[in-house]
Amino acid sequence: MEQRVSLVTLGVYDLARARSFYEGLGWSTGAGPDDDVVFFQAGGAVLALWDRASLADDSGVTDGGGWGGVTLAHNVRSPEEVDAVMAEARSAGARIVREAGDTFWGGYSGVFHDPEGHAWEVAHNPRWGLAADGSVELNP
Amino acid sequence: MEQRVSLVTLGVYDLARARSFYEGLGWSTGAGPDDDVVFFQAGGAVLALWDRASLADDSGVTDGGGWGGVTLAHNVRSPEEVDAVMAEARSAGARIVREAGDTFWGGYSGVFHDPEGHAWEVAHNPRWGLAADGSVELNP
Repeated sequence: MEQRVSLVTLGVYDLARARSFYEGLGWSTGAGPDDDVVFFQAGGAVLALWDRASLADDSGVTDGGGWGGVTLAHNVRSPEEVDAVMAEARSAGARIVREAGDTFWGGYSGVFHDPEGHAWEVAHNPRWGLAADGSVELNP
Repeated sequence: MEQRVSLVTLGVYDLARARSFYEGLGWSTGAGPDDDVVFFQAGGAVLALWDRASLADDSGVTDGGGWGGVTLAHNVRSPEEVDAVMAEARSAGARIVREAGDTFWGGYSGVFHDPEGHAWEVAHNPRWGLAADGSVELNP
């Protein structure tokens, strides 16, 4: 199995609300207005929004609701850019659960939840590389 | 906010078991044997394994246990490659929850759970592009 993730699908209760939130962050999708799955090209991977009950069924899981052990992160090039993205997220309607600040691991980050409760960390990690296309390199 | 995901962190109850599973799939990490976070370069992003309670605390969530609305996918170049990766996952100790087969959306896929219950779909989507480096393109 090659060492990569192709697609992250976020199960959502309200697709229109979730789509609006990511579009409010400046993301664009080719999905039609009535499509039941919304795909966003996300660097070399794809982020999808799909009905949470359908995703649970398709994934062979029982959904107890709430968070289930997965957090996403969006890495940027400087602490200032963390602040800027957190401000964008706030304006788009995110719930800010950790204001941006220095972290125990030597970086700078904040955490927001999208309207569906999915957690995103916005982070600057001075030890990781970030290529022009946004790819992250563990050992730059 | 640029349209990308840098890092997917999987919260785990048993780090050694989870690490072993991904290493059993042929993935390699630069993490030391006693590191409390295990990072895998995953294409232009990173997949991390970290203690689930620590991740919940860091992410500002209450963890009810179980699945929480996120499923990952690993896309490959042919149905035969789906079968091959599903076989590798089975050998590495995955729980197969949906055997590989034709899907309602016109592709071919199967689903496994890692030992921590995180869901992965292994998929061939004939409409998406897959570059030599494994990057997925929605509109090839």
